[in-house]
Amino acid sequence: MFGPDITFLGVEAIDIADTSALTKADVVIVGAPFDGGTSYRAGARFGPSAIRSTDYLPHDGSRPSLALGVDALRDINVVDMGDVEMFSGDIEKSCKALEDTVSTIARHDAIPLILGGDHTVTWPNVTGIANAKGFGKVGVIHFDAHADTGDINFGSLIGHGQPMRRLLESGACRGDRFIQMGLRGYWPEPETLDWMAEQGMRSYEMTEITSRGFDVCLEEAVALALKDCDGIYLSVDIDVVDPGSAPGTGTPEPGGLSSRQLLDAVRWICYKVPVWGIDIVEVAPGYDHADITALLANRVALESLSALAKRKRDGSNDDSWKTKPLLEGR
Amino acid sequence: MFGPDITFLGVEAIDIADTSALTKADVVIVGAPFDGGTSYRAGARFGPSAIRSTDYLPHDGSRPSLALGVDALRDINVVDMGDVEMFSGDIEKSCKALEDTVSTIARHDAIPLILGGDHTVTWPNVTGIANAKGFGKVGVIHFDAHADTGDINFGSLIGHGQPMRRLLESGACRGDRFIQMGLRGYWPEPETLDWMAEQGMRSYEMTEITSRGFDVCLEEAVALALKDCDGIYLSVDIDVVDPGSAPGTGTPEPGGLSSRQLLDAVRWICYKVPVWGIDIVEVAPGYDHADITALLANRVALESLSALAKRKRDGSNDDSWKTKPLLEGR
Amino acid sequence: MFGPDITFLGVEAIDIADTSALTKADVVIVGAPFDGGTSYRAGARFGPSAIRSTDYLPHDGSRPSLALGVDALRDINVVDMGDVEMFSGDIEKSCKALEDTVSTIARHDAIPLILGGDHTVTWPNVTGIANAKGFGKVGVIHFDAHADTGDINFGSLIGHGQPMRRLLESGACRGDRFIQMGLRGYWPEPETLDWMAEQGMRSYEMTEITSRGFDVCLEEAVALALKDCDGIYLSVDIDVVDPGSAPGTGTPEPGGLSSRQLLDAVRWICYKVPVWGIDIVEVAPGYDHADITALLANRVALESLSALAKRKRDGSNDDSWKTKPLLEGR
Amino acid sequence: MFGPDITFLGVEAIDIADTSALTKADVVIVGAPFDGGTSYRAGARFGPSAIRSTDYLPHDGSRPSLALGVDALRDINVVDMGDVEMFSGDIEKSCKALEDTVSTIARHDAIPLILGGDHTVTWPNVTGIANAKGFGKVGVIHFDAHADTGDINFGSLIGHGQPMRRLLESGACRGDRFIQMGLRGYWPEPETLDWMAEQGMRSYEMTEITSRGFDVCLEEAVALALKDCDGIYLSVDIDVVDPGSAPGTGTPEPGGLSSRQLLDAVRWICYKVPVWGIDIVEVAPGYDHADITALLANRVALESLSALAKRKRDGSNDDSWKTKPLLEGR
Amino acid sequence: MFGPDITFLGVEAIDIADTSALTKADVVIVGAPFDGGTSYRAGARFGPSAIRSTDYLPHDGSRPSLALGVDALRDINVVDMGDVEMFSGDIEKSCKALEDTVSTIARHDAIPLILGGDHTVTWPNVTGIANAKGFGKVGVIHFDAHADTGDINFGSLIGHGQPMRRLLESGACRGDRFIQMGLRGYWPEPETLDWMAEQGMRSYEMTEITSRGFDVCLEEAVALALKDCDGIYLSVDIDVVDPGSAPGTGTPEPGGLSSRQLLDAVRWICYKVPVWGIDIVEVAPGYDHADITALLANRVALESLSALAKRKRDGSNDDSWKTKPLLEGR
Amino acid sequence: MFGPDITFLGVEAIDIADTSALTKADVVIVGAPFDGGTSYRAGARFGPSAIRSTDYLPHDGSRPSLALGVDALRDINVVDMGDVEMFSGDIEKSCKALEDTVSTIARHDAIPLILGGDHTVTWPNVTGIANAKGFGKVGVIHFDAHADTGDINFGSLIGHGQPMRRLLESGACRGDRFIQMGLRGYWPEPETLDWMAEQGMRSYEMTEITSRGFDVCLEEAVALALKDCDGIYLSVDIDVVDPGSAPGTGTPEPGGLSSRQLLDAVRWICYKVPVWGIDIVEVAPGYDHADITALLANRVALESLSALAKRKRDGSNDDSWKTKPLLEGR
Repeated sequence: MFGPDITFLGVEAIDIADTSALTKADVVIVGAPFDGGTSYRAGARFGPSAIRSTDYLPHDGSRPSLALGVDALRDINVVDMGDVEMFSGDIEKSCKALEDTVSTIARHDAIPLILGGDHTVTWPNVTGIANAKGFGKVGVIHFDAHADTGDINFGSLIGHGQPMRRLLESGACRGDRFIQMGLRGYWPEPETLDWMAEQGMRSYEMTEITSRGFDVCLEEAVALALKDCDGIYLSVDIDVVDPGSAPGTGTPEPGGLSSRQLLDAVRWICYKVPVWGIDIVEVAPGYDHADITALLANRVALESLSALAKRKRDGSNDDSWKTKPLLEGR
Repeated sequence: MFGPDITFLGVEAIDIADTSALTKADVVIVGAPFDGGTSYRAGARFGPSAIRSTDYLPHDGSRPSLALGVDALRDINVVDMGDVEMFSGDIEKSCKALEDTVSTIARHDAIPLILGGDHTVTWPNVTGIANAKGFGKVGVIHFDAHADTGDINFGSLIGHGQPMRRLLESGACRGDRFIQMGLRGYWPEPETLDWMAEQGMRSYEMTEITSRGFDVCLEEAVALALKDCDGIYLSVDIDVVDPGSAPGTGTPEPGGLSSRQLLDAVRWICYKVPVWGIDIVEVAPGYDHADITALLANRVALESLSALAKRKRDGSNDDSWKTKPLLEGR
Repeated sequence: MFGPDITFLGVEAIDIADTSALTKADVVIVGAPFDGGTSYRAGARFGPSAIRSTDYLPHDGSRPSLALGVDALRDINVVDMGDVEMFSGDIEKSCKALEDTVSTIARHDAIPLILGGDHTVTWPNVTGIANAKGFGKVGVIHFDAHADTGDINFGSLIGHGQPMRRLLESGACRGDRFIQMGLRGYWPEPETLDWMAEQGMRSYEMTEITSRGFDVCLEEAVALALKDCDGIYLSVDIDVVDPGSAPGTGTPEPGGLSSRQLLDAVRWICYKVPVWGIDIVEVAPGYDHADITALLANRVALESLSALAKRKRDGSNDDSWKTKPLLEGR
Repeated sequence: MFGPDITFLGVEAIDIADTSALTKADVVIVGAPFDGGTSYRAGARFGPSAIRSTDYLPHDGSRPSLALGVDALRDINVVDMGDVEMFSGDIEKSCKALEDTVSTIARHDAIPLILGGDHTVTWPNVTGIANAKGFGKVGVIHFDAHADTGDINFGSLIGHGQPMRRLLESGACRGDRFIQMGLRGYWPEPETLDWMAEQGMRSYEMTEITSRGFDVCLEEAVALALKDCDGIYLSVDIDVVDPGSAPGTGTPEPGGLSSRQLLDAVRWICYKVPVWGIDIVEVAPGYDHADITALLANRVALESLSALAKRKRDGSNDDSWKTKPLLEGR
Repeated sequence: MFGPDITFLGVEAIDIADTSALTKADVVIVGAPFDGGTSYRAGARFGPSAIRSTDYLPHDGSRPSLALGVDALRDINVVDMGDVEMFSGDIEKSCKALEDTVSTIARHDAIPLILGGDHTVTWPNVTGIANAKGFGKVGVIHFDAHADTGDINFGSLIGHGQPMRRLLESGACRGDRFIQMGLRGYWPEPETLDWMAEQGMRSYEMTEITSRGFDVCLEEAVALALKDCDGIYLSVDIDVVDPGSAPGTGTPEPGGLSSRQLLDAVRWICYKVPVWGIDIVEVAPGYDHADITALLANRVALESLSALAKRKRDGSNDDSWKTKPLLEGR
Repeated sequence: MFGPDITFLGVEAIDIADTSALTKADVVIVGAPFDGGTSYRAGARFGPSAIRSTDYLPHDGSRPSLALGVDALRDINVVDMGDVEMFSGDIEKSCKALEDTVSTIARHDAIPLILGGDHTVTWPNVTGIANAKGFGKVGVIHFDAHADTGDINFGSLIGHGQPMRRLLESGACRGDRFIQMGLRGYWPEPETLDWMAEQGMRSYEMTEITSRGFDVCLEEAVALALKDCDGIYLSVDIDVVDPGSAPGTGTPEPGGLSSRQLLDAVRWICYKVPVWGIDIVEVAPGYDHADITALLANRVALESLSALAKRKRDGSNDDSWKTKPLLEGR
């Protein structure tokens, strides 16, 4: 919607109405330039264009991963359908348009990779997946500094949060399969925490993550999300990372993950378990410096794509690449 | 709505429901932290708090004007009612709340000075004035780089523009009493210009202003706006000033007025003719540098208040202060 | 002193002369907007207003801690007395005014939480505590990249440092109970180190912290500070954190703690041992980006307040909250 | 060469080898992403992509000019051939590639509009024009703070300047038809000025422009450039504008033109006299703020295109549009 | 005092104690890195190093002026004595050190060119001149947005102002020969204006300057300053320029002069009348963007030096250079 | 080459032609202000001046290391020969000049510490070392996010990379003694990896480093680099550190080392094994914030110098300083 019409790092553009293109696609990039739900700093509407284009390498539709030995943009069929038209002043209509798009993609067995936008978009995203795959069949892994689960009430984070409520209330995702990683800070208030507990949600606050270890918590989270579910939806709010490495976001909260931790976690999930959809949200370029936040989000996308490509090629059982020297066996 | 609860430079806070306070007030500051209508860079929601607090002088409710020899914050009764609650995701409801507030103030014969927010707010502002003073009785002087008069259609400036249409269509302000100063650039398209011409609007593009002289055009504009009208509404989009002096705005357009020209124009209008309402809009602090845009907007407010104070004290017929040495007669 | 008159996140304002308010208070926020002691980049005078107001949540006097399950701003009586008047050009007078204020608060058995300002303020702060609690009775835990212990001599860090000398020389704090955490870099020179050794100081440089482990060093430090002392004074120079996460400070030194480490350390100290006073210093907003340094300092304050609240409510013996799932038991 | 493959504001892309497309074109946009000639701050290599894409309006190949009543991107045939491959480390080869491209365009009677890059590119640009139109037949109007005419010698501005020497020495442009506007500051040294005088150059320093009037000097300059010449080459170094409105450039020099003056001058030249080629150079986005310099350069391009369109449609004899009200006659 | 030991653009360094060097000098550059008097944003302590070194040309002790045809750094003897040691926390001592330095220079009939520092430094500067030339014999031309004449009272501009009072009260400069250009805004209050009137000061507010014309006011000001005086002291607060072109300053006030106006005024004064001393103050690099404010201050210094050189070489009676073409007569 | 003529933190300047000065030197600082090889953001030409001067401590030629108890700038003979003249537009000539300089230094048994500049400079640096010490006798430890080993082809990283190829192909350094630490991301493509494997290179990608541990990998790398070699060349591309702590670089890649890890690694290598040369490259100040990247590079230099000094004084066998309390034994 904003700026020139480009695709993610130069991958092929498709028209969402083109069924045959969808049928062939493994992953469909979707822009969701909506920030009407932000309670504080707006600007995530420019997230999709920033994430698509922020890179120092040529926009040539090729990204060979050093770590995984795959070139996701070539080894699997990654296409970009452009932005869904989402006027920030009209949440209902915008979310419906996005939900329909995601459903269409999921029904063609492609994986939607949605570039937000503010965190509101996870509501239509997961609903769209559920429309295609069945209500209650998708587990959600949600990286975020904030729980995003408030009841509607302007003046706090819960502009974004109300949609999450509607998501769980609709049954698209079971509350006890909605797993949060990286929460911290001073929100929400007890009433909302009670509501979250009632839904059976499982939320890993940074204190628990630090005390028990990130890898331990992550494995536990993924196992839990997949119990009785058939696939995972992965939602990455860039503010889960410490503001030092991700300043360009609407509501930065100190004390987060390192960018290394996030990249490794996203890669591991996409490699190990079936992922049905992904979003990367809350990149607000107006507050970024030297594009480091947009670049991080771009790499979150590439890590997930690369892991999907490796999973498709090699399966997910062999973890020896984690310690294998880069050039060994060439 | 955002940040701590402060008033404009420390003036008295009032409750909008307090009739006796309104009755005594000459000017009521109103925050309109809404940016749901922005078509490009958002962030004007932080305009009210930035304009209220950006100053290097103490927030002590006193600002003696060197140029005019008045202390507006003391010589007239300037009060601050805080922000109207305006969720950026709900234009209709937010605008209605603002309109009601402005009507209430105008009905008490106080002058509302509205701190935006994006330019959408001028629609409820002028309508609110018209509710109190009579439809078709208020002329509008509109400083802006953009005409803001498009029909609804996302993807261009006309998110802001559609409200302006509704303003003219409602008859709150007559089209031929809606005068624009400082337009430039490459918008709108001919259809919208035709519509503007049909309304009888008068728009001064920078080419005409440069060729004929700013002062000449300004006098002509004010005379026109007041024909058959009883008062003026003054709307200042900070982007009328060149981006060099006002970078912190959503849609900067090179080639604008100098900040000196804008300050002098605002002062002159508020001193010479009856002003019923004022807004200062499109200050987006996230794109500002060293607070110079917020500071400029703060000074636009102070110049208008100072001129209102001088007009109340001395009348508006004596312009000798323009050339009188600062210390003469002390 | 600078900008509008606001309190820390909206807590109640009190007058320092109001004895009954002091008597009821658990913690009193004190602004110390002084940067006359800075040897390099000034600007910490704006620290108090930045730390008080930088947050994306409403300034409503409520901050429920996710990690600790308390709402410090409600569960204990936190009030804000505003800024002590400290002209940066007059160190002696400014420090005396601050010392008297801190003494007054400490004598009423409230905990002063001082928002600096440059590190000079720790001298009057600790002296003020000692005035109330007894000389030699307070141990100091000092988080900092720099030792701040030089003899007076312009052109290096020792503008700040000289007061620290006077603090130890006065006996307000015993040298061997002044514990430093996080030192690194290339200052001070051997003569000053010798002087520090003579005082019996214990300084943990980053090399020792990295080699032996931060938690090990921290526990050792706290135990040492409390030997023969009855309470702890906690002084946090924000530059102890790596410049990537805390760029907005006067003398950034690469290779520091992560923001997560600092937040956890502050929380642990305030929960486990009796704390008599706290300061957070050297936040220089003019060098910040996207407010991340001010936000970190705000969170250091909130972590300490939350831990004080939890200590007051639950005692300090049960550490099970460190690994307890967030929603467990709701 | 850098970033995604986009065209200027969405105009049609062409292949430089496509003769029929060139034949139909009125103006061909050419990117020259070269900054190997910069003597100080580099970064102009990102100028082409910044100038092409920096706008808040949709990239839809339409820009109706308010001032001129034309839509240059539709009324004349403006196309974009992308970037010439110019490695910044190889001046000779890069300039030759650009010269050949410009020649090809000029031979098809289209006007090349070159987006720099540093000012080195004017050498191949004018040579390319001369190849097509005849040596000594093109007059140059050169807006710049700097004379750019030094002999080769690293450590000063003359990295850019040496090519200008070769341009004049080659006879592509006669020295006495190379007219400079806006010079100021402290370069070059007397030897170079002597050389310039020997060439018969005419350089308008800001003192003369201020004393005699910009419009007077501009008319004189254009008349002089066209004497015995058949067409004009217009070269715009963005640093001719004051650094307040154009900070994003390599060698900013205080005391320049206002952005309004530059826009009006470019428009007037392109409307009044035959222009054979245009370049806009020295936009260095890394030093820009809120994109205001890139936006100004984008508007310099649009003003020149709009004036070319108006000239083609209406001829250049009627200046009444300068004072005509915007909506008059609609 | 801060950063490496460099001289102004590479001119010769001298030791202030070296009498023979002083005797030979025409102009002595003096750094006054003091910002202890700032009432708001500090940082002017870094002004001297920024003004000395901010330039894109080599630091080679040569700056041929295009406008004046002189190379001040070579044609007259300009030397740099480094910084006076001025601890920002000790106004009295720092000012005394500066005053003594200035006196020494002036007694050797050299012109001190002082690089501030905040505006406090004008007090010792003018006093130092008066010590050498006689009390009441120097007229002051003071470019500034602010009057800087308050009585001492923290919390407003009058930290800087009190020294100006002491300057006039001491008789070093007669009140009626202290002329101010460029004032604007909302300070000081009536009591201070009354005091200024009592001193016989003449202050040109921007309204008068705009209404009557800058050149007219400037000529009048200089004539007035020289009545019964033998020389001029020129004090340039960079905030006299509009914040768009000079954002890097402590208390920016919108609506100022253009940078072109300031440069021309400084040049004209130094060329036309005897100047005994100059200061350039309030450059705060921490708030600058792309160094444009430091660069402007550097050019103010170079314009004054160039005009002094031209005056020395040619006398001051021939103004034909204002309209002479740059290359004419070479 | 850019800005004033300063030395690294005030150490003694020498002339490269002064044989006796070279003979006495332990370490010679060399500026290599070349960025003609950058494939994306330029600006590393300003690296040498930024690294030399960015520090808040006085430029007095003294830096006592807290961690190591040495003052490298005094304990060993560190001198600065200034910049090699390297025009960014001429790679061959610039690299030859640098190579000759490095050879000269190495032949005098001093250690060259080269401040880049882009990574191209490592080619002449290592070749220069090999010229003096023998081809194939130096092992290289290369900290970098990128492999820098491409074949020539503009449009990707391989502007820098081609020289690395020539370095290995020349035999100056054996391919199997060229060890890389910290690689990550999506470059180079398989053909280049194959070429690297053919050379026998050993590259530690971040995945291996994270999985096996940084210290383990580092020890292994150093042992490997020294096998059959007599000395180490240490090349530090600042982008090996995460962009959060090192934003000011040309091609930032998320997920890097912490600044603490890099500082400790550099220190350890320079202390434990014979180092023959060092470079620190790719600092691009134009993209930095609050100078944190330049400051980090300055500290990388100081850590290496301090470790060299400690090695010279104490030998390299005693690691007890790693855990010894700072003040113990004073």
